[in-house]
Amino acid sequence: MGENRAPPKNVAIALVHYPVYNRNREVVTTSVTSVDIHDIARISRTYGLYRFYIVTPVEAQRDMVMRIVDHWVSNEALQDHPRTVALRTVAVAPDLEEALKDFQASTGLPPLIVTTSARFKDGTISFEEMRRRIALGHEGVMLVFGTGWGLSEEVIAKSHFRLEPVRGVDDYNHLSVRSATAIILDRLLGDRV
Amino acid sequence: MGENRAPPKNVAIALVHYPVYNRNREVVTTSVTSVDIHDIARISRTYGLYRFYIVTPVEAQRDMVMRIVDHWVSNEALQDHPRTVALRTVAVAPDLEEALKDFQASTGLPPLIVTTSARFKDGTISFEEMRRRIALGHEGVMLVFGTGWGLSEEVIAKSHFRLEPVRGVDDYNHLSVRSATAIILDRLLGDRV
Repeated sequence: MGENRAPPKNVAIALVHYPVYNRNREVVTTSVTSVDIHDIARISRTYGLYRFYIVTPVEAQRDMVMRIVDHWVSNEALQDHPRTVALRTVAVAPDLEEALKDFQASTGLPPLIVTTSARFKDGTISFEEMRRRIALGHEGVMLVFGTGWGLSEEVIAKSHFRLEPVRGVDDYNHLSVRSATAIILDRLLGDRV
Repeated sequence: MGENRAPPKNVAIALVHYPVYNRNREVVTTSVTSVDIHDIARISRTYGLYRFYIVTPVEAQRDMVMRIVDHWVSNEALQDHPRTVALRTVAVAPDLEEALKDFQASTGLPPLIVTTSARFKDGTISFEEMRRRIALGHEGVMLVFGTGWGLSEEVIAKSHFRLEPVRGVDDYNHLSVRSATAIILDRLLGDRV
């Protein structure tokens, strides 16, 4: 089954490091972490995403990301390493707009902006409905994830859709962004269980 | 919905650091990593697991884990911090047998041992069937995850069930153990999408 599906090239992820909240709900820039790069690249590759955009206004951090990617991707001996294969999905952008522009060069039409947050309550699109829209393949879908304590209102205001949050057994809603990304992509693109 | 479900206290995770394979399929002991502790503790708390066992024969590493847990759990000012709440699920064990014994003290009967591997082909139990068994609640279920390049045959031989692997768009099967844990728990215990 899984082996025969065409990769859903109409979906991309943006991992936003600014503008996001810190614990005191101040707008901050977070640092790019190595574990986010590698874990989310593997997830992106697993589900066949078009691209995993690491979004930060800090040029030195974008350079750092691309140095890591180049280290693996340009090394002849590492071409088949799972880490290399995953890192080929990675791109960097100074802000969400630039990531959207790059994605649109592939999709043609402006992509749908779908934001995620553990705090969303009403007015969200369900996983089921989002999964259906992606499967139709008529439009590019940019799934936007926030680091730190989540995407700022300024980013959320740009959404075409706000995605239903992942719920567990009660109101504890503090997954790492890596775990949230894994679960959400599996719900939207995984083989149905 | 999610808010009213009883926590599935009959499920626990064991994250095994020995015996596991390295890339050359040699049996090794891997190091416990901080990101595994925190990410998987959060996942375990989200889905209401009984316990998250970190299994390593290296006493210094078990001590290190418990120092991290105690730092958060014993600090009055951090009692409500999401990290503290998650770390309360963490326990350590020198081997899988000790983890099973501790879990059995809670479940009464010997728990089912359910191993996971991206390499499993035939003879696996489906997510659907495992989800049903867990929902019945008649038995404790220990989900066993390997670090490094996966659980050794010696551990897999103890399985009552081997769980169907997570599949993506093709044969790329190299999620981090953190991502695999998140997706598998969501498939077995999450609200259905």
